[in-house]
Amino acid sequence: MVTAVVLVTTESERVAEAAQAMLKVEGVTEVYSVTGPYDLVVMVRIPDFERLAEIVPERLAQVPGVARTETMVAFRTYSDYDLDRIWAQGLE
Amino acid sequence: MVTAVVLVTTESERVAEAAQAMLKVEGVTEVYSVTGPYDLVVMVRIPDFERLAEIVPERLAQVPGVARTETMVAFRTYSDYDLDRIWAQGLE
Amino acid sequence: MVTAVVLVTTESERVAEAAQAMLKVEGVTEVYSVTGPYDLVVMVRIPDFERLAEIVPERLAQVPGVARTETMVAFRTYSDYDLDRIWAQGLE
Amino acid sequence: MVTAVVLVTTESERVAEAAQAMLKVEGVTEVYSVTGPYDLVVMVRIPDFERLAEIVPERLAQVPGVARTETMVAFRTYSDYDLDRIWAQGLE
Amino acid sequence: MVTAVVLVTTESERVAEAAQAMLKVEGVTEVYSVTGPYDLVVMVRIPDFERLAEIVPERLAQVPGVARTETMVAFRTYSDYDLDRIWAQGLE
Amino acid sequence: MVTAVVLVTTESERVAEAAQAMLKVEGVTEVYSVTGPYDLVVMVRIPDFERLAEIVPERLAQVPGVARTETMVAFRTYSDYDLDRIWAQGLE
Amino acid sequence: MVTAVVLVTTESERVAEAAQAMLKVEGVTEVYSVTGPYDLVVMVRIPDFERLAEIVPERLAQVPGVARTETMVAFRTYSDYDLDRIWAQGLE
Amino acid sequence: MVTAVVLVTTESERVAEAAQAMLKVEGVTEVYSVTGPYDLVVMVRIPDFERLAEIVPERLAQVPGVARTETMVAFRTYSDYDLDRIWAQGLE
Amino acid sequence: MVTAVVLVTTESERVAEAAQAMLKVEGVTEVYSVTGPYDLVVMVRIPDFERLAEIVPERLAQVPGVARTETMVAFRTYSDYDLDRIWAQGLE
Amino acid sequence: MVTAVVLVTTESERVAEAAQAMLKVEGVTEVYSVTGPYDLVVMVRIPDFERLAEIVPERLAQVPGVARTETMVAFRTYSDYDLDRIWAQGLE
Repeated sequence: MVTAVVLVTTESERVAEAAQAMLKVEGVTEVYSVTGPYDLVVMVRIPDFERLAEIVPERLAQVPGVARTETMVAFRTYSDYDLDRIWAQGLE
Repeated sequence: MVTAVVLVTTESERVAEAAQAMLKVEGVTEVYSVTGPYDLVVMVRIPDFERLAEIVPERLAQVPGVARTETMVAFRTYSDYDLDRIWAQGLE
Repeated sequence: MVTAVVLVTTESERVAEAAQAMLKVEGVTEVYSVTGPYDLVVMVRIPDFERLAEIVPERLAQVPGVARTETMVAFRTYSDYDLDRIWAQGLE
Repeated sequence: MVTAVVLVTTESERVAEAAQAMLKVEGVTEVYSVTGPYDLVVMVRIPDFERLAEIVPERLAQVPGVARTETMVAFRTYSDYDLDRIWAQGLE
Repeated sequence: MVTAVVLVTTESERVAEAAQAMLKVEGVTEVYSVTGPYDLVVMVRIPDFERLAEIVPERLAQVPGVARTETMVAFRTYSDYDLDRIWAQGLE
Repeated sequence: MVTAVVLVTTESERVAEAAQAMLKVEGVTEVYSVTGPYDLVVMVRIPDFERLAEIVPERLAQVPGVARTETMVAFRTYSDYDLDRIWAQGLE
Repeated sequence: MVTAVVLVTTESERVAEAAQAMLKVEGVTEVYSVTGPYDLVVMVRIPDFERLAEIVPERLAQVPGVARTETMVAFRTYSDYDLDRIWAQGLE
Repeated sequence: MVTAVVLVTTESERVAEAAQAMLKVEGVTEVYSVTGPYDLVVMVRIPDFERLAEIVPERLAQVPGVARTETMVAFRTYSDYDLDRIWAQGLE
Repeated sequence: MVTAVVLVTTESERVAEAAQAMLKVEGVTEVYSVTGPYDLVVMVRIPDFERLAEIVPERLAQVPGVARTETMVAFRTYSDYDLDRIWAQGLE
Repeated sequence: MVTAVVLVTTESERVAEAAQAMLKVEGVTEVYSVTGPYDLVVMVRIPDFERLAEIVPERLAQVPGVARTETMVAFRTYSDYDLDRIWAQGLE
């Protein structure tokens, strides 16, 4: 599984609307509205790196109200949780 | 549940060591080493905001090799997953 | 009690108007127009962290004339004053 | 009354120690350890602007562990609280 | 006497016009158009700190063509000149 | 007369000492310790631009405790005061 | 052969369109859409430095949807590949 | 194939030495010493995203003389060249 | 002779046009379109510092297509060339 | 002829020494100590782009007292002077 953490800046009156729209994009497991210089942090968890292009620049960055996205891709994941199982089966 | 996303800069030769040490801190569910200007992204998920002070400035920021931490606290969480259940029971 | 310090940038001709409007938002105890790179510093003092989302991104950031808000949440408060009593009873 | 909001960066292992030391300085009513790029926010409330020089550059900036201070002085204060009375009598 | 040094950014075709308008504001003794990232440096010298709010955010920042003002207030003044006398009597 | 406004950053425990030392440099009429990101603002007023090199990089920047100097030279001066007379005769 | 690495910022809805248009410009061998603060990285490989002006400011920077270009020219190239042969003959 | 563009800052007297050392790391096809704020641009081309962690934070960032690395991973590659063939066979 | 180096940002489609217009301004000896964050570097060489105000803020900054100018004035010139003679007689 | 404009930051007590040393490097025609955020501006004028690597990263950046160099290479030169002749023959 590949994980990307996307820092998003939005127009200030459209934070909630953009968060809702991003949650519908494939691979997005969580969207957080946050304190500090960014408006949203979006967690993307997908099986293959190759599909990230369809998700971040072609879907998330096109959501109405989004001004900028800045993506950090995880080199390595450190966790005591079984993240593959959680995100594969979490919605049952 | 309160979620904090902590952006961490480390000395470059101690990224993996710092990630391992942070994973032992209460409330830390995932540590990601990432591309871009930061070295690590740390997810902290705890029941009460009040305990965040013990975790971030008093534990994470004191890990050897850590140069700076910058914390974003989630105002709201948007997810189709049952995050409370996942992080409460994820370690079985 | 949870305290947030919000740094606000406004359009320069609407500083006073924005300050007055922010003072009407629940939990806002003081608004300062200040020297330096920001225009306003807003003190928010509320019983629960959970209500911060209603106050900062959904109320303060929507005030007309506001360009950006950047929120710092207090991990710990150090004071010799009985701040809980002051802000609970200060308006009598 | 003149109010100054001082944004402080400290060495990461000395945040709590610096906060305690700053609380002893005349005119300091509250010290907050905070999320985001700064470590501490210090509220200074004094009767005369002229004494600010003794307090910020000559006392607060000299506290051990402090790396930088950046002071914002309030042009105007907007509040429904009687701040003069609160800070004059708050310690009884 | 309280001294404030105000760094001003203007629209590039209105530097001279803004400088002339600022010179008419009470307490402004000198306006300099300067090299470097700012367009104007404005010296404000007034008897009381309390009147600074009327002068900087309410007058200088409202001058047509002004994009941003950033104010530094003097903690202390070091000079071998009798500045109080100069600025009180300089216009005769 | 040529005027330069020099923004100075110092080691925090040497602000006053550096200000005193700078006041002894030829052409320096005022030194202000200030709020905000810089520590000192130094006003240099000299008859000829050519002597600025001896004063700023060769004298002011060499004062012990000085970390950085950033000089703005005035293109034009706007003032209702007779600045040439003031700074020529101010020390009597 | 002279190599230039051009960091490009585009309007977010025109990344793919701009990438396609840039690929048609003489000397452009690869265009990458990337994570992080920039949108595109463009590799330009040409026989003579003198032609870079026709390519970067006069062609790439004029592509519709491009907001800014920032060019780094290679002083030296370190590679175990025969880059001159690759880029001269790569299209057969 | 996954492509990463790594922007590297080095100690100024070790640019050439660091470039030579980086060229020996698996997956590194080219190292450019460049004009502008960075010292080196390193092209990494590997079959799987998963191996990037071994290459960038664990190998490139550990090269003596390297101060910081900042990695951009390519979402998509636009090229008229057969890049897979070039980098697979380029060394014969 | 006084030398000023002016760093200029322009609208990207007007770089060449702005360069040509600047070359007609008195005292401008060379205009370079350049790699990196700025678009143009303009060399101004004039007999007296006093005339710089007429040239930079009042002429160069008003050229159509110019977004920002940032001027560095030379404190000292180090050269083995007879620069006074070159720029005085260079046009014959 | 290829022209490079190199912005240099030095240790503040070694500006003059670094300027003198840089003037001895092949292709350097002028060194200016300047106002503003940089300490020196160095003009390099050479017949071929290829030799720039020997001059900037391998010679100028190695001069004692130099902290950082940032190079802008000219895409195009606009001048009414015969710059090729000036710099070829200027030293007689």
